[in-house]
Amino acid sequence: MFIATCPLILASASPRRQQLFAALGLHCTCIPATIDETPLVGETPAAFAVRMAEAKAAEVATTQDAAACVIGADTVVTIDGRILGKPANHREALRFLELLNGKTHSVITGYALQARGHGVLLHDHATTRVRFGHFNQDTLAAYANTKEPLDKAGAYAIQGAGAFLVASIDGSCTNVIGLPVQAIVHSLLAHRFIRPGSAPLPDTA
Amino acid sequence: MFIATCPLILASASPRRQQLFAALGLHCTCIPATIDETPLVGETPAAFAVRMAEAKAAEVATTQDAAACVIGADTVVTIDGRILGKPANHREALRFLELLNGKTHSVITGYALQARGHGVLLHDHATTRVRFGHFNQDTLAAYANTKEPLDKAGAYAIQGAGAFLVASIDGSCTNVIGLPVQAIVHSLLAHRFIRPGSAPLPDTA
Repeated sequence: MFIATCPLILASASPRRQQLFAALGLHCTCIPATIDETPLVGETPAAFAVRMAEAKAAEVATTQDAAACVIGADTVVTIDGRILGKPANHREALRFLELLNGKTHSVITGYALQARGHGVLLHDHATTRVRFGHFNQDTLAAYANTKEPLDKAGAYAIQGAGAFLVASIDGSCTNVIGLPVQAIVHSLLAHRFIRPGSAPLPDTA
Repeated sequence: MFIATCPLILASASPRRQQLFAALGLHCTCIPATIDETPLVGETPAAFAVRMAEAKAAEVATTQDAAACVIGADTVVTIDGRILGKPANHREALRFLELLNGKTHSVITGYALQARGHGVLLHDHATTRVRFGHFNQDTLAAYANTKEPLDKAGAYAIQGAGAFLVASIDGSCTNVIGLPVQAIVHSLLAHRFIRPGSAPLPDTA
């Protein structure tokens, strides 16, 4: 239902971010950046996510046509001041799920828009608070046993089976998947990188 | 990742509710109820949604084996004391979207669990507050032009292209799709209608 007015490049390897755009009728080319993803000493999770998003967009923008719009994004899951990345294995996935069980954590996505002709147009972040229900060890283990947690920051997918874990959220839903879609669409419309139009939608809903 | 210990019956025609269970590895048989869906004079949206859910579950339970668990659900979208149903046509879809644009509304799902051997085991409701971003007429019209709003209460699908409309929510995400999954799973586990187990998951996330 949107039409891009220039090539849209997603500086990300995440198929989930690409799917969020595809649901709007927008095709994004995914070009993963290869940057150092180490937090600085004393850096807050939000500052880290924004710095990563900017660095990804900046790196990929150098390889693109000046007219292209490059979108960088980085999502972090954080609880008690600690950042949870993608679990290394089944055991770490279960440990992450135990940490989050029955508690509230934050999901923060940093994002940046860049077009070489215009430099950095926007960098910001969105925070969603996510409250997990409380489940027993057997249930958490059954979820860890599925493959779903392994490639997800924080070891769960709110858009998949992991939905059963989430009692409530406060903030953007799509931000938990990897991109605050409403905010991004608003910015892309404001910069005229996209416009409303009636290209057919994929049959997703 | 869950295994049903008895037949699960969804007293609903909604493919989206069935999909929410399927993502958890649970097969539900959908049997729509044919009840009068007229609100009573002075009935609140929450009371109406719970009464509809109970009536759907009760009607379908009479046709089922006593061991089956019947789940009734009814989702209403409400703003300024008014209930928005499914739009009758493109024009009404656009009118609903204009009503919701830039404002916060409530999505309320009433739900009821019933097994003939045990009567009504549970009836409750979940409320999610949903805040829309503000979009211009052309953008709302482009969304109304997609077929997506036509069969959705309130004229949008948060799990589809309609995600771009939603700036933030406060409450359960899946409740906006049609069922507060965390609460339902918690109840189904408590009543031992399901148990954690490692049946393979569909590839959804």
